[in-house]
Amino acid sequence: MPHIVLTEGLPGIRGPMVFSPETTKPLCELVQVLLTGPHTLTPAEREMIATYVSSENDCYYCQHCHGSTAAQHLGGTEADYELIGQIKRNFEGTVLSAKMKALLNVAGKVQKGGKYVTPAAVARAREEGATDKEIHDTVLIAAAFCMFNRYVDGLATWQPHEPEIYREIGQQTSKLGYIGRDYKKPLEAIASKLAGA
Amino acid sequence: MPHIVLTEGLPGIRGPMVFSPETTKPLCELVQVLLTGPHTLTPAEREMIATYVSSENDCYYCQHCHGSTAAQHLGGTEADYELIGQIKRNFEGTVLSAKMKALLNVAGKVQKGGKYVTPAAVARAREEGATDKEIHDTVLIAAAFCMFNRYVDGLATWQPHEPEIYREIGQQTSKLGYIGRDYKKPLEAIASKLAGA
Repeated sequence: MPHIVLTEGLPGIRGPMVFSPETTKPLCELVQVLLTGPHTLTPAEREMIATYVSSENDCYYCQHCHGSTAAQHLGGTEADYELIGQIKRNFEGTVLSAKMKALLNVAGKVQKGGKYVTPAAVARAREEGATDKEIHDTVLIAAAFCMFNRYVDGLATWQPHEPEIYREIGQQTSKLGYIGRDYKKPLEAIASKLAGA
Repeated sequence: MPHIVLTEGLPGIRGPMVFSPETTKPLCELVQVLLTGPHTLTPAEREMIATYVSSENDCYYCQHCHGSTAAQHLGGTEADYELIGQIKRNFEGTVLSAKMKALLNVAGKVQKGGKYVTPAAVARAREEGATDKEIHDTVLIAAAFCMFNRYVDGLATWQPHEPEIYREIGQQTSKLGYIGRDYKKPLEAIASKLAGA
Protein backbone atom coordinates (compact mmCIF):
# COMPACT_ATOMS: atom_id res chain seq x y z
CA MET A 1 0.00 0.00 0.00
CA PRO A 2 1.36 3.44 -0.86
CA HIS A 3 2.61 5.57 2.04
CA ILE A 4 0.20 8.39 1.09
CA VAL A 5 -3.28 8.36 -0.49
CA LEU A 6 -2.88 8.13 -4.29
CA THR A 7 -5.44 7.62 -7.07
CA GLU A 8 -6.05 3.88 -7.47
CA GLY A 9 -5.27 2.11 -10.74
CA LEU A 10 -2.37 4.40 -11.69
CA PRO A 11 0.91 2.45 -11.65
CA GLY A 12 4.28 3.69 -10.40
CA ILE A 13 5.06 7.37 -10.76
CA ARG A 14 1.63 8.13 -12.24
CA GLY A 15 -0.02 8.22 -8.80
CA PRO A 16 2.41 10.83 -7.38
CA MET A 17 2.31 12.72 -10.70
CA VAL A 18 -1.44 13.19 -10.38
CA PHE A 19 -1.09 13.96 -6.64
CA SER A 20 1.37 16.80 -7.29
CA PRO A 21 0.84 18.51 -10.68
CA GLU A 22 3.07 21.47 -9.75
CA THR A 23 6.14 19.22 -9.47
CA THR A 24 5.03 16.94 -12.31
CA LYS A 25 5.39 19.77 -14.83
CA PRO A 26 9.17 20.30 -14.40
CA LEU A 27 9.77 16.55 -13.90
CA CYS A 28 8.13 15.77 -17.26
CA GLU A 29 9.99 18.61 -18.97
CA LEU A 30 13.29 17.32 -17.59
CA VAL A 31 12.78 13.76 -18.82
CA GLN A 32 11.46 15.00 -22.15
CA VAL A 33 14.65 17.02 -22.76
CA LEU A 34 16.92 14.23 -21.54
CA LEU A 35 15.39 11.23 -23.31
CA THR A 36 13.60 12.45 -26.45
CA GLY A 37 14.35 14.60 -29.45
CA PRO A 38 17.43 15.05 -31.65
CA HIS A 39 20.70 13.96 -30.01
CA THR A 40 23.90 12.13 -30.96
CA LEU A 41 22.64 9.35 -28.67
CA THR A 42 19.41 7.83 -29.99
CA PRO A 43 16.27 7.85 -27.82
CA ALA A 44 16.75 4.06 -27.44
CA GLU A 45 20.31 4.56 -26.15
CA ARG A 46 19.23 7.21 -23.64
CA GLU A 47 16.35 5.00 -22.47
CA MET A 48 18.90 2.20 -21.97
CA ILE A 49 20.87 4.42 -19.57
CA ALA A 50 17.64 5.17 -17.66
CA THR A 51 16.77 1.46 -17.64
CA TYR A 52 20.18 0.29 -16.43
CA VAL A 53 20.29 2.81 -13.56
CA SER A 54 16.70 1.94 -12.56
CA SER A 55 17.67 -1.74 -12.55
CA GLU A 56 20.71 -1.04 -10.37
CA ASN A 57 18.38 0.86 -8.00
CA ASP A 58 16.01 -2.14 -8.06
CA CYS A 59 13.02 -0.02 -9.13
CA TYR A 60 10.63 -2.45 -10.83
CA TYR A 61 8.32 0.14 -12.37
CA CYS A 62 11.01 2.42 -13.83
CA GLN A 63 13.25 -0.33 -15.22
CA HIS A 64 10.30 -1.95 -17.01
CA CYS A 65 8.75 1.29 -18.31
CA HIS A 66 12.01 2.60 -19.70
CA GLY A 67 13.23 -0.82 -20.80
CA SER A 68 10.02 -1.29 -22.77
CA THR A 69 10.30 2.22 -24.24
CA ALA A 70 13.88 1.47 -25.33
CA ALA A 71 12.77 -1.84 -26.88
CA GLN A 72 9.90 -0.15 -28.72
CA HIS A 73 12.28 2.49 -30.12
CA LEU A 74 14.39 -0.39 -31.48
CA GLY A 75 11.37 -2.02 -33.18
CA GLY A 76 9.52 -3.77 -30.35
CA THR A 77 10.48 -7.37 -31.23
CA GLU A 78 11.16 -10.10 -28.67
CA ALA A 79 14.86 -9.79 -29.58
CA ASP A 80 14.74 -6.09 -28.68
CA TYR A 81 13.21 -6.90 -25.28
CA GLU A 82 15.82 -9.63 -24.81
CA LEU A 83 18.63 -7.13 -25.48
CA ILE A 84 17.26 -4.87 -22.74
CA GLY A 85 17.33 -7.80 -20.31
CA GLN A 86 20.95 -8.52 -21.28
CA ILE A 87 21.94 -4.89 -20.72
CA LYS A 88 20.57 -5.05 -17.17
CA ARG A 89 22.34 -8.34 -16.45
CA ASN A 90 25.72 -7.63 -18.12
CA PHE A 91 25.95 -4.73 -20.58
CA GLU A 92 29.64 -5.38 -21.26
CA GLY A 93 28.70 -8.69 -22.91
CA THR A 94 26.08 -7.24 -25.30
CA VAL A 95 26.22 -6.12 -28.94
CA LEU A 96 26.11 -2.45 -27.88
CA SER A 97 28.78 -0.10 -29.23
CA ALA A 98 32.00 0.39 -27.27
CA LYS A 99 30.92 4.00 -26.64
CA MET A 100 27.56 2.94 -25.18
CA LYS A 101 29.28 0.40 -22.90
CA ALA A 102 31.65 3.11 -21.66
CA LEU A 103 28.71 5.47 -21.01
CA LEU A 104 26.75 2.76 -19.17
CA ASN A 105 29.87 2.22 -17.05
CA VAL A 106 29.83 5.94 -16.15
CA ALA A 107 26.09 5.74 -15.42
CA GLY A 108 26.63 2.80 -13.07
CA LYS A 109 29.16 4.83 -11.10
CA VAL A 110 26.77 7.80 -10.83
CA GLN A 111 24.16 5.38 -9.46
CA LYS A 112 26.51 4.52 -6.57
CA GLY A 113 27.28 8.20 -5.94
CA GLY A 114 28.75 11.21 -7.74
CA LYS A 115 32.24 10.70 -6.31
CA TYR A 116 32.44 7.18 -7.80
CA VAL A 117 32.84 8.68 -11.29
CA THR A 118 36.59 8.40 -11.86
CA PRO A 119 38.76 10.22 -14.42
CA ALA A 120 39.52 6.73 -15.83
CA ALA A 121 35.83 5.99 -16.44
CA VAL A 122 35.41 9.33 -18.22
CA ALA A 123 38.65 8.81 -20.18
CA ARG A 124 37.38 5.44 -21.41
CA ALA A 125 34.16 7.07 -22.68
CA ARG A 126 36.16 9.82 -24.38
CA GLU A 127 38.51 7.29 -26.03
CA GLU A 128 35.44 5.52 -27.44
CA GLY A 129 34.29 8.80 -29.00
CA ALA A 130 31.96 10.26 -26.37
CA THR A 131 31.61 14.06 -26.45
CA ASP A 132 31.33 16.40 -23.46
CA LYS A 133 27.59 16.69 -24.10
CA GLU A 134 27.19 12.90 -24.16
CA ILE A 135 29.14 12.56 -20.91
CA HIS A 136 27.15 15.41 -19.33
CA ASP A 137 23.82 13.95 -20.41
CA THR A 138 24.79 10.44 -19.27
CA VAL A 139 25.65 11.79 -15.80
CA LEU A 140 22.42 13.79 -15.60
CA ILE A 141 20.20 10.95 -16.91
CA ALA A 142 21.75 8.59 -14.35
CA ALA A 143 21.39 11.19 -11.58
CA ALA A 144 17.78 11.95 -12.58
CA PHE A 145 16.83 8.27 -12.38
CA CYS A 146 18.34 8.09 -8.91
CA MET A 147 15.66 10.70 -8.17
CA PHE A 148 12.78 9.09 -10.08
CA ASN A 149 13.51 5.62 -8.63
CA ARG A 150 13.53 7.01 -5.07
CA TYR A 151 10.33 8.96 -5.74
CA VAL A 152 8.53 5.84 -7.02
CA ASP A 153 9.79 3.42 -4.35
CA GLY A 154 10.02 5.96 -1.50
CA LEU A 155 6.24 6.40 -1.64
CA ALA A 156 5.67 2.62 -2.00
CA THR A 157 3.64 3.11 -5.18
CA TRP A 158 1.59 0.31 -6.78
CA GLN A 159 3.81 -1.51 -9.31
CA PRO A 160 1.99 -4.25 -11.23
CA HIS A 161 4.13 -7.00 -12.79
CA GLU A 162 2.09 -7.86 -15.92
CA PRO A 163 4.32 -7.52 -19.04
CA GLU A 164 1.39 -6.24 -21.17
CA ILE A 165 1.14 -3.13 -18.97
CA TYR A 166 4.78 -2.23 -19.61
CA ARG A 167 4.43 -3.07 -23.31
CA GLU A 168 1.59 -0.55 -23.57
CA ILE A 169 3.60 2.07 -21.64
CA GLY A 170 6.60 1.54 -23.94
CA GLN A 171 4.44 1.78 -27.06
CA GLN A 172 2.79 5.01 -25.88
CA THR A 173 5.96 6.67 -24.60
CA SER A 174 8.08 5.81 -27.64
CA LYS A 175 5.41 7.52 -29.79
CA LEU A 176 4.19 10.38 -27.60
CA GLY A 177 7.14 11.32 -25.38
CA TYR A 178 6.61 12.55 -21.84
CA ILE A 179 4.80 15.90 -21.94
CA GLY A 180 1.26 16.91 -22.86
CA ARG A 181 -0.17 13.50 -21.94
CA ASP A 182 -3.11 12.51 -19.72
CA TYR A 183 -1.48 10.51 -16.95
CA LYS A 184 -4.78 10.40 -15.03
CA LYS A 185 -6.26 8.01 -17.62
CA PRO A 186 -5.91 4.31 -16.69
CA LEU A 187 -3.89 2.20 -19.13
CA GLU A 188 -5.92 -0.06 -21.47
CA ALA A 189 -4.11 -3.12 -20.13
CA ILE A 190 -5.25 -2.24 -16.61
CA ALA A 191 -8.78 -1.13 -17.57
CA SER A 192 -9.50 -4.34 -19.53
CA LYS A 193 -8.20 -6.43 -16.64
CA LEU A 194 -10.43 -4.58 -14.19
CA ALA A 195 -13.40 -4.93 -16.55
CA GLY A 196 -12.78 -8.67 -16.88
CA ALA A 197 -12.41 -9.18 -13.14
CA MET B 1 39.41 19.35 -12.58
CA PRO B 2 35.88 18.87 -13.92
CA HIS B 3 35.29 15.82 -16.14
CA ILE B 4 34.02 18.08 -18.98
CA VAL B 5 34.93 21.62 -20.03
CA LEU B 6 32.90 24.06 -17.89
CA THR B 7 33.06 27.88 -17.58
CA GLU B 8 35.76 28.74 -15.02
CA GLY B 9 34.91 30.60 -11.82
CA LEU B 10 31.40 29.18 -11.50
CA PRO B 11 31.16 26.94 -8.42
CA GLY B 12 29.31 23.63 -8.13
CA ILE B 13 26.16 23.19 -10.19
CA ARG B 14 26.54 26.62 -11.84
CA GLY B 15 29.07 25.29 -14.36
CA PRO B 16 26.79 22.46 -15.62
CA MET B 17 23.79 24.83 -15.48
CA VAL B 18 25.47 27.20 -17.91
CA PHE B 19 26.72 24.25 -20.02
CA SER B 20 23.19 22.87 -20.48
CA PRO B 21 20.49 25.59 -20.39
CA GLU B 22 17.82 23.25 -21.79
CA THR B 23 18.02 21.00 -18.70
CA THR B 24 18.69 23.90 -16.32
CA LYS B 25 15.21 25.33 -16.99
CA PRO B 26 13.22 22.37 -15.59
CA LEU B 27 15.80 21.75 -12.83
CA CYS B 28 15.41 25.33 -11.56
CA GLU B 29 11.62 25.13 -11.82
CA LEU B 30 11.61 21.91 -9.83
CA VAL B 31 13.71 23.28 -6.98
CA GLN B 32 11.74 26.54 -7.00
CA VAL B 33 8.45 24.65 -6.49
CA LEU B 34 9.93 22.33 -3.88
CA LEU B 35 11.86 24.80 -1.72
CA THR B 36 10.24 28.23 -2.05
CA GLY B 37 6.79 29.76 -1.83
CA PRO B 38 3.82 29.16 0.49
CA HIS B 39 3.83 25.77 2.23
CA THR B 40 3.06 24.29 5.64
CA LEU B 41 6.81 23.63 5.91
CA THR B 42 8.77 26.90 5.94
CA PRO B 43 11.42 27.54 3.27
CA ALA B 44 14.02 27.10 6.05
CA GLU B 45 12.61 23.67 6.94
CA ARG B 46 12.60 22.52 3.32
CA GLU B 47 16.16 23.80 2.83
CA MET B 48 17.13 21.78 5.95
CA ILE B 49 15.87 18.59 4.27
CA ALA B 50 17.93 19.44 1.16
CA THR B 51 20.96 20.19 3.35
CA TYR B 52 20.72 17.01 5.39
CA VAL B 53 20.40 14.77 2.31
CA SER B 54 23.30 16.59 0.60
CA SER B 55 25.41 16.07 3.73
CA GLU B 56 24.56 12.35 3.81
CA ASN B 57 25.59 12.21 0.13
CA ASP B 58 28.83 14.03 1.07
CA CYS B 59 28.26 16.79 -1.52
CA TYR B 60 30.25 19.77 -0.22
CA TYR B 61 28.77 22.37 -2.56
CA CYS B 62 25.09 21.45 -2.10
CA GLN B 63 25.18 20.99 1.67
CA HIS B 64 26.83 24.39 2.13
CA CYS B 65 24.65 26.27 -0.39
CA HIS B 66 21.40 24.95 1.01
CA GLY B 67 22.62 25.03 4.62
CA SER B 68 23.51 28.68 4.19
CA THR B 69 20.15 29.39 2.51
CA ALA B 70 18.34 27.72 5.43
CA ALA B 71 20.40 29.73 7.93
CA GLN B 72 19.66 32.98 6.08
CA HIS B 73 15.93 32.20 6.09
CA LEU B 74 16.20 31.84 9.89
CA GLY B 75 17.93 35.21 10.29
CA GLY B 76 21.52 34.56 9.23
CA THR B 77 23.12 34.71 12.72
CA GLU B 78 26.02 32.51 13.84
CA ALA B 79 23.52 30.56 15.96
CA ASP B 80 21.47 29.83 12.83
CA TYR B 81 24.55 28.50 11.02
CA GLU B 82 25.43 26.45 14.13
CA LEU B 83 21.95 24.88 14.13
CA ILE B 84 22.47 23.77 10.51
CA GLY B 85 25.74 22.12 11.51
CA GLN B 86 23.97 20.31 14.36
CA ILE B 87 21.23 19.06 12.02
CA LYS B 88 23.87 17.49 9.77
CA ARG B 89 25.68 15.87 12.71
CA ASN B 90 22.63 14.70 14.74
CA PHE B 91 19.24 16.16 13.92
CA GLU B 92 17.50 14.09 16.64
CA GLY B 93 19.42 16.08 19.27
CA THR B 94 18.46 19.55 17.99
CA VAL B 95 15.70 22.02 18.97
CA LEU B 96 13.74 21.18 15.78
CA SER B 97 10.09 20.16 16.13
CA ALA B 98 9.20 16.49 16.54
CA LYS B 99 7.55 16.64 13.11
CA MET B 100 10.69 17.98 11.43
CA LYS B 101 12.82 15.28 13.09
CA ALA B 102 10.40 12.62 11.80
CA LEU B 103 10.54 14.10 8.28
CA LEU B 104 14.35 14.27 8.34
CA ASN B 105 14.29 10.60 9.37
CA VAL B 106 12.20 9.82 6.26
CA ALA B 107 14.55 11.91 4.10
CA GLY B 108 17.56 9.98 5.41
CA LYS B 109 15.93 6.73 4.35
CA VAL B 110 15.17 8.07 0.87
CA GLN B 111 18.86 9.02 0.60
CA LYS B 112 19.81 5.35 1.09
CA GLY B 113 17.20 4.19 -1.44
CA GLY B 114 13.43 4.33 -1.97
CA LYS B 115 12.82 0.90 -0.46
CA TYR B 116 14.41 1.97 2.85
CA VAL B 117 11.34 4.12 3.61
CA THR B 118 9.38 1.92 6.05
CA PRO B 119 5.72 2.16 7.07
CA ALA B 120 7.03 2.80 10.62
CA ALA B 121 9.06 5.84 9.50
CA VAL B 122 6.00 7.26 7.71
CA ALA B 123 3.74 6.44 10.70
CA ARG B 124 6.09 8.34 13.01
CA ALA B 125 5.87 11.42 10.75
CA ARG B 126 2.09 11.14 10.63
CA GLU B 127 1.84 10.79 14.44
CA GLU B 128 3.83 14.01 14.75
CA GLY B 129 1.29 15.78 12.53
CA ALA B 130 2.80 15.46 9.04
CA THR B 131 0.28 15.59 6.18
CA ASP B 132 0.33 13.54 2.97
CA LYS B 133 1.64 16.60 1.12
CA GLU B 134 4.44 17.10 3.65
CA ILE B 135 5.43 13.42 3.39
CA HIS B 136 5.24 13.55 -0.43
CA ASP B 137 7.33 16.71 -0.60
CA THR B 138 9.90 15.37 1.87
CA VAL B 139 10.35 12.23 -0.26
CA LEU B 140 10.64 14.26 -3.46
CA ILE B 141 13.03 16.87 -1.98
CA ALA B 142 15.25 14.05 -0.69
CA ALA B 143 15.06 12.22 -4.02
CA ALA B 144 15.77 15.42 -5.98
CA PHE B 145 18.91 16.10 -3.95
CA CYS B 146 20.10 12.56 -4.65
CA MET B 147 19.99 13.79 -8.26
CA PHE B 148 21.52 17.24 -7.71
CA ASN B 149 24.34 15.85 -5.54
CA ARG B 150 25.22 13.24 -8.16
CA TYR B 151 25.09 15.86 -10.92
CA VAL B 152 27.48 18.17 -9.03
CA ASP B 153 29.93 15.47 -7.89
CA GLY B 154 29.54 13.17 -10.91
CA LEU B 155 31.02 15.89 -13.14
CA ALA B 156 33.74 16.70 -10.55
CA THR B 157 32.74 20.38 -10.48
CA TRP B 158 34.87 23.07 -8.80
CA GLN B 159 33.73 23.41 -5.17
CA PRO B 160 35.53 26.18 -3.27
CA HIS B 161 35.58 25.91 0.53
CA GLU B 162 35.56 29.62 1.56
CA PRO B 163 32.60 30.27 3.91
CA GLU B 164 32.03 33.77 2.50
CA ILE B 165 31.13 32.24 -0.89
CA TYR B 166 28.38 30.13 0.64
CA ARG B 167 27.21 33.04 2.80
CA GLU B 168 26.71 35.10 -0.36
CA ILE B 169 24.90 32.22 -2.08
CA GLY B 170 22.60 31.79 0.92
CA GLN B 171 21.86 35.51 1.09
CA GLN B 172 21.05 35.67 -2.63
CA THR B 173 18.98 32.47 -2.77
CA SER B 174 16.95 33.21 0.38
CA LYS B 175 15.95 36.54 -1.22
CA LEU B 176 15.70 35.69 -4.93
CA GLY B 177 14.74 32.00 -5.11
CA TYR B 178 16.01 29.81 -7.92
CA ILE B 179 14.49 31.00 -11.19
CA GLY B 180 15.05 34.08 -13.34
CA ARG B 181 18.61 34.58 -12.08
CA ASP B 182 21.90 35.09 -13.93
CA TYR B 183 23.95 32.04 -12.94
CA LYS B 184 26.65 32.98 -15.48
CA LYS B 185 27.72 35.98 -13.36
CA PRO B 186 30.60 35.20 -10.97
CA LEU B 187 29.81 35.64 -7.27
CA GLU B 188 31.15 38.83 -5.63
CA ALA B 189 33.10 36.75 -3.10
CA ILE B 190 34.91 34.99 -5.96
CA ALA B 191 35.36 38.10 -8.14
CA SER B 192 36.91 40.14 -5.31
CA LYS B 193 39.23 37.28 -4.47
CA LEU B 194 40.35 37.00 -8.09
CA ALA B 195 40.81 40.82 -8.27
CA GLY B 196 42.94 40.79 -5.09
CA ALA B 197 45.05 37.86 -6.27
